[in-house]
Amino acid sequence: MPGKLEDIGEFGTIGRIARSVFTSPAMALDFQDDAALWQWGGGWLIATTDALVEDVDFRLCTFSWEDIGWKALAVNLSDIAAMGGSPRGALVALCLPAESEVAQVDAFYRGMSLLAEQARTPILGGDLSSSAHVMVNVTVFGEVESGERVLRRSVAQVGDQIGVTGVLGNAAAGLALLEGNAIVGGSTRERFIAAQRRPAPRLREGRALVAAGVRCGMDISDGLVVDLQKLCAASGVSAEIACADVPTDPDLAAVLGDDCSRQALNGGEDYELLFTAPPATMRRAQDRLTRLGLATCTVVGRIVAGSGGEVVLRGDHGEALLPTGKGFDHFDAAAVPRKGRE
Amino acid sequence: MPGKLEDIGEFGTIGRIARSVFTSPAMALDFQDDAALWQWGGGWLIATTDALVEDVDFRLCTFSWEDIGWKALAVNLSDIAAMGGSPRGALVALCLPAESEVAQVDAFYRGMSLLAEQARTPILGGDLSSSAHVMVNVTVFGEVESGERVLRRSVAQVGDQIGVTGVLGNAAAGLALLEGNAIVGGSTRERFIAAQRRPAPRLREGRALVAAGVRCGMDISDGLVVDLQKLCAASGVSAEIACADVPTDPDLAAVLGDDCSRQALNGGEDYELLFTAPPATMRRAQDRLTRLGLATCTVVGRIVAGSGGEVVLRGDHGEALLPTGKGFDHFDAAAVPRKGRE
Repeated sequence: MPGKLEDIGEFGTIGRIARSVFTSPAMALDFQDDAALWQWGGGWLIATTDALVEDVDFRLCTFSWEDIGWKALAVNLSDIAAMGGSPRGALVALCLPAESEVAQVDAFYRGMSLLAEQARTPILGGDLSSSAHVMVNVTVFGEVESGERVLRRSVAQVGDQIGVTGVLGNAAAGLALLEGNAIVGGSTRERFIAAQRRPAPRLREGRALVAAGVRCGMDISDGLVVDLQKLCAASGVSAEIACADVPTDPDLAAVLGDDCSRQALNGGEDYELLFTAPPATMRRAQDRLTRLGLATCTVVGRIVAGSGGEVVLRGDHGEALLPTGKGFDHFDAAAVPRKGRE
Repeated sequence: MPGKLEDIGEFGTIGRIARSVFTSPAMALDFQDDAALWQWGGGWLIATTDALVEDVDFRLCTFSWEDIGWKALAVNLSDIAAMGGSPRGALVALCLPAESEVAQVDAFYRGMSLLAEQARTPILGGDLSSSAHVMVNVTVFGEVESGERVLRRSVAQVGDQIGVTGVLGNAAAGLALLEGNAIVGGSTRERFIAAQRRPAPRLREGRALVAAGVRCGMDISDGLVVDLQKLCAASGVSAEIACADVPTDPDLAAVLGDDCSRQALNGGEDYELLFTAPPATMRRAQDRLTRLGLATCTVVGRIVAGSGGEVVLRGDHGEALLPTGKGFDHFDAAAVPRKGRE
């Protein structure tokens, strides 16, 4: 009989839930994917839900209420992007102390509406509740063209290349700046902090990947290595990452110093897309993203045989490196600390 | 410039949000309804989200984890029932301390699955997060036959009768028993406590009301009087309740004593349906519910002219009674205390 959640971790717990709850044979995907997907009338619906909790996902001393509103929607839109879908609407549950200011609620919804409008995702309704701490839960619905034309975690094949959009580690650098664990000024500081507070969900990139023929993918919310482990475990494969190929911002080292590559591999919260495809499809995807003026797409490794979901890090000469940290797990006290908690 | 949430209350805040957020002209209903409704492909989708917060909506010393799972789904299914819809799936976000027991999560999902199966509402996915206090947010999607064949709050007409399903005050009595503010034993105790911990959403009743031609309705979550005030405000009418006609359990007085009628009027959390219709439609609705073996349907008052959303309580001889309490408002410190908080 298992004991505490921290013993089996977030993903062990999700696995247990998936095996036990009342669910439906009509569900097209597993609990392991970023969003649920099911057929509806003539189309395909997807939906995802994600909570942000004060002092776990943000701190009121480093996030404005606009930031909280933006980010609560962004992390959910990222799950829609991770499936290659198009968002169609959001529901918002906001729990906060009764002594909160009306102006704070106004600011929260102002920040959220800014992104909602950009992403053409109307806010359809919600719930308002009192609580000791601030907690936001957003649910986003969207659609995909068909149940086949989506990104899912379980279809990586040996020989696939592994791609990521954009650069990694910026959100971790922004957190380090906000928490006073790093010092950089000017527009560089602003750029990294914006990556932490106002991530831009890769919705257009997700759809472009699907259009290019990519079928395996997810978003990077907990860290490249730990998220790739999940993708590999779902697909029954393993992976190798060429550490030197992991794309980073040219100023990342100036902020993080020696911690730079560890945070690019494990930092989390970048909400970039992680995907795999055969080399020809990967080239097509890179071309398509370039042609559309979207985020860059960088090959960082390859899928190899091995059912354990193992991710091996390779150095400049192909040597295996020791893992330098872990991604974020909500119930793993030993994981990389996030949001300044130890 | 308004100050604190407790100054303008839960519904004042919702009104502010509805006026400011990015939304869509395609939305068929207002934020004031129990669920969002929009056209999708050839059909009509509805969706609702509701959070339960530890020490606001339940206490861990009086609710089992099974109860929390059941109730978190039930309050959302009730919002689907309140529109006359059919639930089709649920997403669940569960936030709880990392030191929680795996067995507690198992029990939570066991309780939820029990109701999910009864209500044929598969659990499609969710989110798991660490937090200092337990918080559950459930989102339920469903469908309605058409945008016209739903229950909404804004279409009450002068001359309508006001109906409620079932009996009122049982959930408040259950809370009083759980909090030690009342003492009754045996199966009576169990019945009232079950009304508080495991409310039964009136899904079949909601659909039967729509089929009988009823178009105005909502669920009673905060209390008959305060919920009727919301319905009246949305419709631009006022209402009268004949207090003696409000249906109660024959044993309610044994539990609540002198507080019996106050709790039937203001107790909240019964998740019965409140609806209005012209007398001929009301009779048809009553017949239909009886024929289908569903909950009883009792006429408790009538809609009268007056745009203020005023609800007048009438005594046995038609005299106006003084209001004896208020329903639940998350941000109103002066409202009837719920969950044993003062």
